[in-house]
Amino acid sequence: MTIHPVHPAHTRIYRSGDRSDIQVPFTRVALTNGETFDRYCTSGPGSDPVVGLPPLRAAWIEGRADTASYDGRETQLLDNGRSAVRRGEAQDPWRGEKRRPRRGDNITQMAYARAGIVTEEMRYVAEREQCDVELVRSEIAAGRAILPANVNHPETEPMIIGKRFLVKVNANIGNSAVTSSIAEEVDKLTHAITWGADTVMDLSTGEDIHTTREWIIRNSPVPIGTVPIYQALEKVNGEADKLSWEVFRDTVIEQCEQGVDYMTIHAGVLLGYVPLTAHRVTGIVSRGGSIMAGWCLAHHEENFLYTHFDELCAIFRQYDVSFSLGDGLRPGATADANDEAQLSELRTLAELTARAWEHDVQVMVEGPGHVPLNLVEENVRLQQDWCHGAPFYTLGPLATDIAPGYDHITSAIGAAAIAMHGTAMLCYVTPKEHLGLPNRDDVKTGVITYKLAAHAADVAKGHPGARDWDDALSRARFEFRWHDQFALSLDPVTAEAFHDETLPAENAKTAHFCSMCGPKFCSMRISQDVRERFADEVRAAGMAQKSAEFVELGGTVYVEPEAS
Amino acid sequence: MTIHPVHPAHTRIYRSGDRSDIQVPFTRVALTNGETFDRYCTSGPGSDPVVGLPPLRAAWIEGRADTASYDGRETQLLDNGRSAVRRGEAQDPWRGEKRRPRRGDNITQMAYARAGIVTEEMRYVAEREQCDVELVRSEIAAGRAILPANVNHPETEPMIIGKRFLVKVNANIGNSAVTSSIAEEVDKLTHAITWGADTVMDLSTGEDIHTTREWIIRNSPVPIGTVPIYQALEKVNGEADKLSWEVFRDTVIEQCEQGVDYMTIHAGVLLGYVPLTAHRVTGIVSRGGSIMAGWCLAHHEENFLYTHFDELCAIFRQYDVSFSLGDGLRPGATADANDEAQLSELRTLAELTARAWEHDVQVMVEGPGHVPLNLVEENVRLQQDWCHGAPFYTLGPLATDIAPGYDHITSAIGAAAIAMHGTAMLCYVTPKEHLGLPNRDDVKTGVITYKLAAHAADVAKGHPGARDWDDALSRARFEFRWHDQFALSLDPVTAEAFHDETLPAENAKTAHFCSMCGPKFCSMRISQDVRERFADEVRAAGMAQKSAEFVELGGTVYVEPEAS
Repeated sequence: MTIHPVHPAHTRIYRSGDRSDIQVPFTRVALTNGETFDRYCTSGPGSDPVVGLPPLRAAWIEGRADTASYDGRETQLLDNGRSAVRRGEAQDPWRGEKRRPRRGDNITQMAYARAGIVTEEMRYVAEREQCDVELVRSEIAAGRAILPANVNHPETEPMIIGKRFLVKVNANIGNSAVTSSIAEEVDKLTHAITWGADTVMDLSTGEDIHTTREWIIRNSPVPIGTVPIYQALEKVNGEADKLSWEVFRDTVIEQCEQGVDYMTIHAGVLLGYVPLTAHRVTGIVSRGGSIMAGWCLAHHEENFLYTHFDELCAIFRQYDVSFSLGDGLRPGATADANDEAQLSELRTLAELTARAWEHDVQVMVEGPGHVPLNLVEENVRLQQDWCHGAPFYTLGPLATDIAPGYDHITSAIGAAAIAMHGTAMLCYVTPKEHLGLPNRDDVKTGVITYKLAAHAADVAKGHPGARDWDDALSRARFEFRWHDQFALSLDPVTAEAFHDETLPAENAKTAHFCSMCGPKFCSMRISQDVRERFADEVRAAGMAQKSAEFVELGGTVYVEPEAS
Repeated sequence: MTIHPVHPAHTRIYRSGDRSDIQVPFTRVALTNGETFDRYCTSGPGSDPVVGLPPLRAAWIEGRADTASYDGRETQLLDNGRSAVRRGEAQDPWRGEKRRPRRGDNITQMAYARAGIVTEEMRYVAEREQCDVELVRSEIAAGRAILPANVNHPETEPMIIGKRFLVKVNANIGNSAVTSSIAEEVDKLTHAITWGADTVMDLSTGEDIHTTREWIIRNSPVPIGTVPIYQALEKVNGEADKLSWEVFRDTVIEQCEQGVDYMTIHAGVLLGYVPLTAHRVTGIVSRGGSIMAGWCLAHHEENFLYTHFDELCAIFRQYDVSFSLGDGLRPGATADANDEAQLSELRTLAELTARAWEHDVQVMVEGPGHVPLNLVEENVRLQQDWCHGAPFYTLGPLATDIAPGYDHITSAIGAAAIAMHGTAMLCYVTPKEHLGLPNRDDVKTGVITYKLAAHAADVAKGHPGARDWDDALSRARFEFRWHDQFALSLDPVTAEAFHDETLPAENAKTAHFCSMCGPKFCSMRISQDVRERFADEVRAAGMAQKSAEFVELGGTVYVEPEAS
């Protein structure tokens, strides 16, 4: 399907910087006063889902001449679950182009950055973030930012995750055993990137996991993340005890070859930490965490993801897959926040970060979850200190547990706060969290809610240029350019629909009021009158004299209150 | 109309403490495990709108024997606007009981508190807040809390606004010249208190202002606030220049006699401050602020609300009306936050706070508005320092300007943060903010969003008992008591509807999963299995030995990461 602009005043433009083969998309908003405003754009060039996207990065990857295609692992029926085995065939197989997988020796963006090599991906990101390319390279080299870009996902438009850059938002999609189809999930992907998701995680746990992921990756201009333990568990009949390093490793290679850009690995859930969750209010709430805890207890062995971590690194570096070190012991209730289980795991994630970096593998670290507002900052501070500045990627956190149905909001409160303190990417939460699988509308609500939280953090951090967007919209508002106010909105469709609910006529779009206050009580209109009157008076009386008069007046009426 | 419980497991109970005539309502939630949980309740006893509520406080007020009823001001057609004058009659007059107004000399809760008198209202509040009554009295005496309770609104169930107490939420309702009716506004009131609004402001600026307010007050168990300048402006044909102290004073008395509990007074918008707004992105965005600024410039005179402030105090103390000192120069864009205009006015509000206290009149101080997250804390700090700890009452603030249609969320982010730092009451913002007049659904969304923000702040502040609610809900969640999870939710209706969208069957309400993850991937189920397995093992091996073993294991796998 084609990506349609969400507002008639939006067009796609491309900026190329100093390289004509690097064409970075922006959404240009044409304002009625002749100005334009360019917005960061995640929706990609659009694709017919059965064809997929063009391989934007293919020439860059080939140009580096450090990867080769190979036959790759043969897809098995079990990759799509036991019902595919029963049926003897997979459903809805991918019908678009099938490229042979590629791999190299050590081809990560981190390896290049450390070697002083500036890749096309880094140039793209610098143009996209409107910053110096050296900032991009050096932050990746230092591990403080990642550029997730599996060579087998050449469709991605490069993006960066790190605290010196715009705060990013991830949208989770994926089916469950209870509901959804491949078409619905591709539709959710489109919806997520249309509204601004910077990465998408396919968390499918139901049928057709391999094929669903193929459709998603081939149509995704944003990096795709997964949690491979979910698929591995399906391959062993859903019995955690039967999991093994071998099954997991095979699943990881399957996903590396498909083009997954980052994978959540719950390697910090150590056997010795499981008892620390025994007296929690909500125990272990990470799916991957609970699976690995179950495995550890069943086998009385250390987590195989931990013991085989270096082998994982050796695989990831061949494809440039990034780690998202999972926080399997994150708190699932505000009561459990910042407890010993959570912090013990974080210390292990810090150790694993350093080990991945020895392999030049990119790493981000996942964070909670459910955290009361007064404990939010400590989460970032400890993660940044212990994990040597590796990007933090948090799920919310929810600032309270009492509002199921509104957990996009309870978590956006925590998310804005944690991002202000240095979290690099926020994993969205939808209104359905804790209650059911999100549908496409929930995906949109989640993405918009998190985009506003991320932007609030960018503004609070004083990120260069971030507040320009607010100012452009506020000026449109003050000047009653209603069309511009809608076009500049994060969600123009909803803003315009809300306005039109009471004042649908076209002439209301230039009126100096809305139905909230009506014409006589519009403060912005009155304020403009006041401003004009003041300007007239200043002109009449002579600027200098009038100013002095006002200042003097201000002096006489100003009274410093008593200190007590 | 009767207030229906929002969930079948909710019943109304009353606690009386040490006085049988003080019956404080709570919503008791009956849980399926036999426990109960009591929630603060704002919805009142329910009323037939044409009859109104019983005068709960009448006996207490009479018992103090310091007020007397009197004839009161005669209602004029102009009180309901110029169309009532044209028509020669008011629409939909109040048909319920009409009590003669009462007044005294100095009958404010602050006067009593300072005299060491503990009123029934204070006892009621102490029971409601589950705190010591001396805390209530002393905070009111010190001005750090207010108990808004006009003697002509005996229907109110007493509540308190102060940072040592639960964070409160105000819901704005009221018509505009463009839309709404009296019936719709009474319906919004009912909706607001059903979902938890602690006070309601009637901000009507359209037709039938007097009558709309009468219907609202007579049916409201929560304090009602107004901005009397709106009605005064209607009385002078909407022309700010024609406003005068006399018209305003008459309007204030009209509203005091009706029973308005607190009034927003924009006495801090001084002539000398108006030029400070000249270079703002959005000028003056308070309706009252822009009206008074217009008046000041037109007359080249100081704001009559400022020059007549002591006379206002002398009126308010006769009825126990509280000041809500309006921030007419609050920022309307993040660009304008914490600027000289805003802070100059705040200094004047501090001066006026001290003057009101000389009259024993209760005061809260209004705050912004639109503030980037990094500047939020400073707003509370300065207000608390300058205004001697008087309660802060903020509108949001919105943490970004880019999301019209979602400003309940952009502002809930700022609201939770500012409340955590000490704001006592939050004025809600609905999804329609900046776009149109909220309808009943918007009122509900606004109230729920602000209740969760206020509660997040209570939890962050470590308010005694606040987290009990979160813990009760989290335990229900972990134990798959779905009915209890819904019943404990801030909005049980939405939580249950979201769950039932994919799993409507009754047996899904006891299932150990939901459609989000499906049965095999439910972390809470797996975590319970893990917990049971662990418990079994501990039992089998002997508690002490097994624990030691786990601790030892934890010790061997724990590696402190390098500091650099």
